[in-house]
Amino acid sequence: MTDLLFWLDIFGIIVFALSGALMAGRYQLDPFGVVVLAAVTAVGGGTIRDIILNTPVFWVEKTYYLWVICVTAVLTIAFIRRPKRIPKRFLLIADAFGLALFAVVGTEKALGLGAPISAAIVLGTITAVAGGMIRDVLCNVIPMILRQEIYATAAMLGSGLYAILIAWQVSDTLAIIFAVAGALILRLAAIYWQVSLPAFQIVEKESKP
Amino acid sequence: MTDLLFWLDIFGIIVFALSGALMAGRYQLDPFGVVVLAAVTAVGGGTIRDIILNTPVFWVEKTYYLWVICVTAVLTIAFIRRPKRIPKRFLLIADAFGLALFAVVGTEKALGLGAPISAAIVLGTITAVAGGMIRDVLCNVIPMILRQEIYATAAMLGSGLYAILIAWQVSDTLAIIFAVAGALILRLAAIYWQVSLPAFQIVEKESKP
Amino acid sequence: MTDLLFWLDIFGIIVFALSGALMAGRYQLDPFGVVVLAAVTAVGGGTIRDIILNTPVFWVEKTYYLWVICVTAVLTIAFIRRPKRIPKRFLLIADAFGLALFAVVGTEKALGLGAPISAAIVLGTITAVAGGMIRDVLCNVIPMILRQEIYATAAMLGSGLYAILIAWQVSDTLAIIFAVAGALILRLAAIYWQVSLPAFQIVEKESKP
Repeated sequence: MTDLLFWLDIFGIIVFALSGALMAGRYQLDPFGVVVLAAVTAVGGGTIRDIILNTPVFWVEKTYYLWVICVTAVLTIAFIRRPKRIPKRFLLIADAFGLALFAVVGTEKALGLGAPISAAIVLGTITAVAGGMIRDVLCNVIPMILRQEIYATAAMLGSGLYAILIAWQVSDTLAIIFAVAGALILRLAAIYWQVSLPAFQIVEKESKP
Repeated sequence: MTDLLFWLDIFGIIVFALSGALMAGRYQLDPFGVVVLAAVTAVGGGTIRDIILNTPVFWVEKTYYLWVICVTAVLTIAFIRRPKRIPKRFLLIADAFGLALFAVVGTEKALGLGAPISAAIVLGTITAVAGGMIRDVLCNVIPMILRQEIYATAAMLGSGLYAILIAWQVSDTLAIIFAVAGALILRLAAIYWQVSLPAFQIVEKESKP
Repeated sequence: MTDLLFWLDIFGIIVFALSGALMAGRYQLDPFGVVVLAAVTAVGGGTIRDIILNTPVFWVEKTYYLWVICVTAVLTIAFIRRPKRIPKRFLLIADAFGLALFAVVGTEKALGLGAPISAAIVLGTITAVAGGMIRDVLCNVIPMILRQEIYATAAMLGSGLYAILIAWQVSDTLAIIFAVAGALILRLAAIYWQVSLPAFQIVEKESKP
């Protein structure tokens, strides 16, 4: 992993840990619950990716990820009593950045370990979205990514772009930049214009589902 | 895996992907959510089985599973706007078939990798029911299999029958047919007569649980 | 694993299986659901620990764990129709014991397989709390451990104490006793005085979350 990718990865961890900690605050969890939810959101996707790839889980060896999450969660508890201080749009943008980045990082790791392209795209998408899904499941809400807006679609675009560019033998740095940018732009556009894909809705006559 | 087993396995994947996609339609997920829910339902059980067996996850190498799921999900979105077109009974029967089959496939794989009989039965049951459990958890409902009807019980019967027949050195084809048939018949009988095992209910005096 | 640790481990399995079975009774699951919930609660944490450590999952080889769970679940169904017969306090104490023990067992296994200290503490905590979390998620409630009382905090204390004592080259038996006692006392004190950590609550002005 290049130096640039390393720092982007850490930034993604911080952003996702923050989003987990804020969710914990909304549900009035105790401080330990905040740390747990921050950790699950930040490393959940990568953990599932590594387990499926049958490779050592990244945070078991590189334990600084755990410290980054702890510090993020503690700072969130200490400073952010009212989320008003952080504009909602800033959070969404940061989260979009984490999403785009983790999709590409995950795809890179899967390809590097010899996974076929289609599996690598799925694994990249899992890296990007699974942490948030577990966070939502633990808080007992239907994962937003299943529900609205172009979220997972953006992750899949980033994963796909990276895999295709690498297959075309584009240099790694260029592929990362284009793929992250592609996913980020799609996600930000979706946030800005509040675009969603049309919902797939089954009309049922029974009134009770 | 024999040719017969291969096609039955693909059929099971299609059936479970369909059930996930229909569930997604009921909860008005966006198209990507439909694909995710279809995939989770179809490969969730087998993924957990392979992870517990510490063996490469099947769809990472055999990526045609992913394509089968994508095509199933897309066709479901395209054609099925009203589930009325598919009689509910047909879906339940197809689902029962997938359940019976995955239980046997899972048990076979676990035994083939040297797991003891009781662990192989548990792993076969996991293969059959875990995908549907994750589907239900993501949609924020208590998994039906924990709740009513003889569902997981049928899966366990299929797994158990197969393991016992193999231990008795019955030929593999015969063991598959008997075990799938056993699980299928129990499940279909439960659907037909709406039989459930009596619920285990704790009577509590406190009004607030 | 020493003889003492072996029996304590079995006791932990029984206690957690009982807690899962009682939860199943509260939600009126069918008998198979009771067994599933008992099993998930009892071995869920250890399974996730072993998967993350990339080591064979313990119950696949040592299948007596599965039998212990089955017997516990069946006895629970047979005898306990009203939880009144078991004083609630007894259950909480037994659960606290399981929690303390699994935290230490999990940390020991992780350290033994060469995990760094901070990762081992996280894995010990996962061993202790993940089973209960999955139980709660399946029953569609926000995991209590995220919510109230000093629960996961006690597990983390046990894991941390054990790791530190081992690092100080205290004998294994002493380290186990001190660490289990530390976690147990903190948890029991929290139950007795109904202490919780202050909740991290974000004040929002929007009335609809």
